Amino acid sequence: MADIEAKVFPIEALREFNTRVFLHFGVPKEEAAQAADVLASADLRGIDSHGVARLHTYFDLLSEGRINPKPRIKTIRSTLSTATVDGDNGLGLVVGPQANRMAMEMAGKAGSGWVSVCNTNHFGIAGYYVLQALERDLIGWAMTNSTSIVAPLWGMERMLGTNPIAVAFPGKEEPPIVMDMATCAAAYGKIEMARRKGEAIPAGWAIDKQGRVTTNPDDAVNGGALLPLGSDRERGGHKGYALAIMVDMLSGVLSGANWGPFAPPFALRQEIPKRSVGKGIGHFFGAMRIDGFIDADSFKRQIDDYIRVFRAAKPAPGTTGPLIPGDPEREAERLRREKGVPLIMPIIEELRDISRKTGIAFD
Amino acid sequence: MADIEAKVFPIEALREFNTRVFLHFGVPKEEAAQAADVLASADLRGIDSHGVARLHTYFDLLSEGRINPKPRIKTIRSTLSTATVDGDNGLGLVVGPQANRMAMEMAGKAGSGWVSVCNTNHFGIAGYYVLQALERDLIGWAMTNSTSIVAPLWGMERMLGTNPIAVAFPGKEEPPIVMDMATCAAAYGKIEMARRKGEAIPAGWAIDKQGRVTTNPDDAVNGGALLPLGSDRERGGHKGYALAIMVDMLSGVLSGANWGPFAPPFALRQEIPKRSVGKGIGHFFGAMRIDGFIDADSFKRQIDDYIRVFRAAKPAPGTTGPLIPGDPEREAERLRREKGVPLIMPIIEELRDISRKTGIAFD
Repeated sequence: MADIEAKVFPIEALREFNTRVFLHFGVPKEEAAQAADVLASADLRGIDSHGVARLHTYFDLLSEGRINPKPRIKTIRSTLSTATVDGDNGLGLVVGPQANRMAMEMAGKAGSGWVSVCNTNHFGIAGYYVLQALERDLIGWAMTNSTSIVAPLWGMERMLGTNPIAVAFPGKEEPPIVMDMATCAAAYGKIEMARRKGEAIPAGWAIDKQGRVTTNPDDAVNGGALLPLGSDRERGGHKGYALAIMVDMLSGVLSGANWGPFAPPFALRQEIPKRSVGKGIGHFFGAMRIDGFIDADSFKRQIDDYIRVFRAAKPAPGTTGPLIPGDPEREAERLRREKGVPLIMPIIEELRDISRKTGIAFD
Repeated sequence: MADIEAKVFPIEALREFNTRVFLHFGVPKEEAAQAADVLASADLRGIDSHGVARLHTYFDLLSEGRINPKPRIKTIRSTLSTATVDGDNGLGLVVGPQANRMAMEMAGKAGSGWVSVCNTNHFGIAGYYVLQALERDLIGWAMTNSTSIVAPLWGMERMLGTNPIAVAFPGKEEPPIVMDMATCAAAYGKIEMARRKGEAIPAGWAIDKQGRVTTNPDDAVNGGALLPLGSDRERGGHKGYALAIMVDMLSGVLSGANWGPFAPPFALRQEIPKRSVGKGIGHFFGAMRIDGFIDADSFKRQIDDYIRVFRAAKPAPGTTGPLIPGDPEREAERLRREKGVPLIMPIIEELRDISRKTGIAFD
C-alpha cells in the first residue's frame, strides 16, 4: 500500500478506537475488546480488507440496528463432539470466537469438536480462529460463507461467497503452518485495486455480466462475478467451485443459516436477497487434539522437519523458492508490530467520519 | 475412451477377476471382495485410472511381497472421536474401508469420528469412502497422501502427491453432492493421454525439469512436475499448494506415515525415496452425524433446494450451465452399469498378463 498516499498507525491506537466504537453501540466491554482483537489480527497480518477498513460497515449496520450488539448466543443442538450455535444476529467478531471456544473445549473432552453457527454476521479473518486453536495446542479449522460474489463454474451469476477455509498446524521450533484461503481465484480487493490503478486483471479472475472471461476490472465490478479457484474447467475451476460449496454446506446448510445466493450482504447499500432460506450467514469451526492421534511433541518435530524440507526445495526460475503457508502474514505482523499499520486515505476518512458521528477521538 | 481401441466388460466380470487375483495372494475372502468393491467403484464412476487399470500394480507389489496380504490392522491411539490406525502395510483397499468404518462408528456415539492411518498403501478413489458414509446417513470425509508428483508453488521438484479430498452431503429426493478432487490443477492421466495423442497440454498443468511452465506433455513426464490447483501465484496456485499440504498433514504427519517427497511410490519400477520419515503412506477419514447439528430431514430438503437453485442458474456462454459435484461420476455409473466398462487395449493386455501368470481366467 506504500504506493498510495498512506499514514501509519500503531496497532494499539486502532485497537482502542475499534473497541470504543463497539462500546458506543452498547456492546459489552469484554465483547467489544474481543471484536477489536479480531480486527487487529487482520490489520497486523496484512489482510487489509478485513481489519479496521471494515469498521465503517460494522458502524453502519450497528447504527441501523441490523446487527444485535447484545446477542444471547445459544447452543441449539449438541453431541459430545458436535454442536450448532445460534448467534442471535450478533457481531460475527463476537459470535465466532465464542463458537470457536466451544469447539476447542469439546476437543479437550472428546478429542475433537465441530461447531456450525447460524444467525451470525461477518467474522473477520478465518485465520484468527485457527491461531486461537494453536495457542491451546490444537489443530484448528475455520470456515464461513458470505455474500454471493463468485459464479459457479459454467454459471454467469454471483451465487457463492468467497467462502474461506483456514487450518493450522503447530511447529516446535519452527513457526506454525497456517493456511487461510478464499476458495475463489483472486480476492475482490485485488480487482478493486487494479481498477483504481487503471490496470487490466489476469484472465481467470472474473467474468463480465454476460458470463464471459474479462480482463477489465470494471466488468467484474459492474454486474460481473469472481471465478472459483482453478478459473476454468481445463485448470480445475470445478474444484474451486466444489470447495466453495463444501464451505457453504458446513457453514450455511448444516447450521440453518442462509446459503448460496441468499446469504445476506455485509454492507448497508447492497441489496438484500429476495428469498431467505435460513438465519443470517453461517460459520463452521473445528478443533482436533493432536494427542488424540499421535504424541504431540513428535508431531511438532515432524512439522519442523517438513518446513525445513520445503524451505530447502529448489526454487523455480524467477522465484525465491516455495513459501510455507502463513509466511507472508507472519512477516507482515512482524513489520507492523514494529512500525505500525499503514492505512490509505479513503479508510482514514471513514474513520474520521465515525469519529465525528460518535465523538470518539481519532488521530 | 471410445476413440481408442477398446472393449467393454460387464462390471461383475471385472469384480470377479479382481477378487480372484487378490485371493490368489492369500488375501482373506471378505477382504478380497472389499478390495474389488473399491476398484469396481472407480470403474463404474469413470475414474478409469483408479480401477482395474491399477490391478497390475497391486499384482506386482503383492508378487514382490511389498504389500502384506494379511495385515493385522491395529488402533494405536484413540479418544471418543479420534483414532490412529496402523494398517500393517496392507492393501489400502482393505485398510481404508476398515478405518473409514471406525470413523463412522465413532460418529454414531460421539457425533463425529476422525481416523488418521499410517502404514498403508494406495486406497483407490477417495469418493468410495464418502459414498459409504452416505449409506449411513453421515457426512463423510476422505483424504490420502501419495507419491510425490506435484511441485510446491515456486518450487521445481516433485514434492507432494495429488493428495485428493472427498466430502459428500446427502439429498432427500435429489442425488447427493459428492466432491472428490485432487489438489493439483489436472490429473497425471490427462497428461499421459495428451502425450499418447501427440497433443499440447494447457499452460498451468505442469512444469518441465527446469521448473518452467510447459505445454509439452513429454516435459511433464520426463522429470517435470504437475502444478497445484490454481497453477500460478496470480491465479491462486498457493491455495492448491496449501490444500495439498493440509492433506499431507492430516494423512501423513498426523498418523506417523511418510509425507511430502518421502511418500513411497505405488509402482514397482519407481524409485523408493532415500529417506523414510514414517510408515507407508497415510489416509484420513472423517464422519459427522447430520443430526449432531440439525434435523437430518430438514437438512436433506435444503440440499434438494440447493441443487435445484444451482441447476437453474443461468449458463455461461458456450456451456450447459453449472453442474453439481458428483454429476459426471453418477452419469458414468448409470451408463456403465447398463452397458459395461470400456477398457483400452493396453489395460486388457495387462489383465491377460495377470491371467497367464496366475491361471485365473480372463475374457
